[in-house]
Amino acid sequence: MKVAKFGGSSVSSAEQLKKVASIITSDPQRKCIVVSAPGKRHSEDTKVTDLLIQLGERSYNGDEYETVLSLVLDRFGEILTDLGLSKSLLNEVEDQLRSIVSGETVYTHRMDALKAMGEDTLAKVLSQYLTTLGYDSSYVHPKEAGIIVSNEPGRAQVLDESYKRLYELRKRDEILVIPGFFGYTKDDQLMAFPRGGSDITGSIVAAGVKASLYENFTDVDSVYCVNPTIVPNPKEIVELTYKEMRELSYAGFSVFHDEALIPAFKARIPVSIKNTNYPDRKGTMISAERSTTKGQPVVGIASDEGFLSLYVSKYLMNREKGFGRHLLQILEEEDISFEHAPSGIDDMSVIMRSDQLTPEKEAVIVKRIEDELSVDTVTIERNLAMIMIVGEGMDSTIGVSSKAARAFASASVNIEMINQGSSEVSMMFGIKADRLNDAVQSLYQAFFVEG
Amino acid sequence: MKVAKFGGSSVSSAEQLKKVASIITSDPQRKCIVVSAPGKRHSEDTKVTDLLIQLGERSYNGDEYETVLSLVLDRFGEILTDLGLSKSLLNEVEDQLRSIVSGETVYTHRMDALKAMGEDTLAKVLSQYLTTLGYDSSYVHPKEAGIIVSNEPGRAQVLDESYKRLYELRKRDEILVIPGFFGYTKDDQLMAFPRGGSDITGSIVAAGVKASLYENFTDVDSVYCVNPTIVPNPKEIVELTYKEMRELSYAGFSVFHDEALIPAFKARIPVSIKNTNYPDRKGTMISAERSTTKGQPVVGIASDEGFLSLYVSKYLMNREKGFGRHLLQILEEEDISFEHAPSGIDDMSVIMRSDQLTPEKEAVIVKRIEDELSVDTVTIERNLAMIMIVGEGMDSTIGVSSKAARAFASASVNIEMINQGSSEVSMMFGIKADRLNDAVQSLYQAFFVEG
Repeated sequence: MKVAKFGGSSVSSAEQLKKVASIITSDPQRKCIVVSAPGKRHSEDTKVTDLLIQLGERSYNGDEYETVLSLVLDRFGEILTDLGLSKSLLNEVEDQLRSIVSGETVYTHRMDALKAMGEDTLAKVLSQYLTTLGYDSSYVHPKEAGIIVSNEPGRAQVLDESYKRLYELRKRDEILVIPGFFGYTKDDQLMAFPRGGSDITGSIVAAGVKASLYENFTDVDSVYCVNPTIVPNPKEIVELTYKEMRELSYAGFSVFHDEALIPAFKARIPVSIKNTNYPDRKGTMISAERSTTKGQPVVGIASDEGFLSLYVSKYLMNREKGFGRHLLQILEEEDISFEHAPSGIDDMSVIMRSDQLTPEKEAVIVKRIEDELSVDTVTIERNLAMIMIVGEGMDSTIGVSSKAARAFASASVNIEMINQGSSEVSMMFGIKADRLNDAVQSLYQAFFVEG
Repeated sequence: MKVAKFGGSSVSSAEQLKKVASIITSDPQRKCIVVSAPGKRHSEDTKVTDLLIQLGERSYNGDEYETVLSLVLDRFGEILTDLGLSKSLLNEVEDQLRSIVSGETVYTHRMDALKAMGEDTLAKVLSQYLTTLGYDSSYVHPKEAGIIVSNEPGRAQVLDESYKRLYELRKRDEILVIPGFFGYTKDDQLMAFPRGGSDITGSIVAAGVKASLYENFTDVDSVYCVNPTIVPNPKEIVELTYKEMRELSYAGFSVFHDEALIPAFKARIPVSIKNTNYPDRKGTMISAERSTTKGQPVVGIASDEGFLSLYVSKYLMNREKGFGRHLLQILEEEDISFEHAPSGIDDMSVIMRSDQLTPEKEAVIVKRIEDELSVDTVTIERNLAMIMIVGEGMDSTIGVSSKAARAFASASVNIEMINQGSSEVSMMFGIKADRLNDAVQSLYQAFFVEG
């Protein structure tokens, strides 16, 4: 049994939905289908989810909302017409939407219920369409599927008991179409996952039904080895391991919602990234192991901006037992997550995401460090970027760090920080953010063009 | 006013003491002289300090000790004779030694008092010799000089009030000869510094008198840029900064007792390393800044074995606020100092000196980490070596890490760990200990021969 998830651009129009139906029906193993809400049909288009958010905000604020409600209904109406389906579903959807916006719910619950309508309606549309094509198909509501989540509006987390319930779906013979993006709490409240949460639903369903494969259909051919906005037309990654994928999506670009794949990874379900528009292309296969680590120690380069370094120096720091622990404790108590903490003999740096450190927070932390640790210096350097070189073969291949360091040097980029040695599959470099593109381009050249 | 300290080999014989006197009297600014106890005259010789330790142990255990007492007296007797001095000092020394070994003191106090006799006697000899040469010279007892220390036998630490007292020595006109290695507590107890402590005395005196220069005379021409047991006849370092010296002496080889120079560094006194046998050679100058960072970003390579890495992995570790702090806290509570803590997304390593982790300690720590942090894996990798590349120019010079990484690669040495980015003057690499020599030789070649 395969689980296939289709993202927003794959379900943006009747034309796209026809491709989706063709993909689904071409493989009898594709039995569990998870869908997003209709995405953009062209660059100026608005996603259905964004229309629903507008609807929620306008209605909550007492503003006029009929216009945006019509836009939503028109969007689905057009899809139904173009697929040759009855428009009777539209009345049902309009009733539901009007009932939500006129309800006495709190803001967050109203927003979750509205946002979910995009996926929910599309799942019904697709299931109807498959039926009209002559296939046995059912729409399956997340509650019926068994997706039980925590009570955190807009950032629900799946509860473990869901997996056992989802496994029951294996008993059904028809093609099941499940809306992505939301689940239900134990006391029957609808809760949405974080944005991009259809990927989460797909991953959860794949884990629950113990799928032989989780196929994630999107609008790119595969995972690229480097951010395509930095390097145009980069090479595609054919095979990736879970670990590699996790490190790659951590530090920046990714075709996925961050950490969406974790349920599938934990259940050791292989994941295939495919393009809805070119389903015969190879795509990227992500699994526990890959066959080709030899000769290709590095699979990808991830990068992200928005980091800062908190630098602390104190003469004879290395004699002071507990210094590092105390510094990290101050940050923990001030609710700051850190990424890395390289240290010298008399100094230590802590790398963190910049957005955590507001000016007020910064003042508090600097004062606490000065008072509690009696340091000589504490300074903050903002505008750092992190670059991560990822690959399973790295830790046992001599010369990877040499090649990387040479690439930085040949782009005349100074390396501010290197963190290597704990992860076996990644090596991290810190540089000034304004040199990011040059550095990444040079690394790409070294590892994927010359190498 | 200059402070000059002469080490054990510089004062091992009358012949050496003549060189010392000639050095002292060739510069009228050399007014404060600190001496060690007589060291080895040849490779099979025994240092006077070691004879005194034997004397202490034998007498304390009730064993026969006249033989070793005679060896000590003979050694000084020979020096006195060869310098043409009266042997009357010998009786005084014998009386003092007999009084210490027959005293009712605790073991540690007896040992400190005995060990101090080597330096103390030699200072008297040298002062007498300078006087017979026609120079105005006084022996100055550390108590008289004002060296006040903490009450920690064998590992005394200087107290801050010493510096003010030592400054009074500036009022004196003659050449002052001060025995190194020991001071006095506030309640008048003799306490020795840790072994090698004549360097400490020299450094303290230089700081106290606010010397224009602290000259450390030894039996090497200078500080070498790499451990000479790994690279024969390495290049000499002409200029070093305090920071560079501190990083170099931290991780292994050094001509100094670890951290002996700290008092001089803190007082910003320039330090000159010279060879007693070739006093006209340039030696090494250590000061707050050096003139030649341009074009020579790296001044030295330090290396040491005996490290281990404690590796911990846990899926989704990076989401867990406080994980790193908790891990370091367990180590702190178990009295373990760590050197570095590189981290990945789902893993963290802690590098520490191996000798701290006995099998019992290891068992306790591994269990605590498993119990308290619910990790997936905790493993320990022993037999690691650390290599530190040191230089003030490093952090602003593009290509240093590239050159270093290339040197490892060309020696076919895999880099297990890189820690760069906190210290501005060093970059640290972890490798397997059995590859240390190859790696250091290759780095030397890259930075000091080719570069």
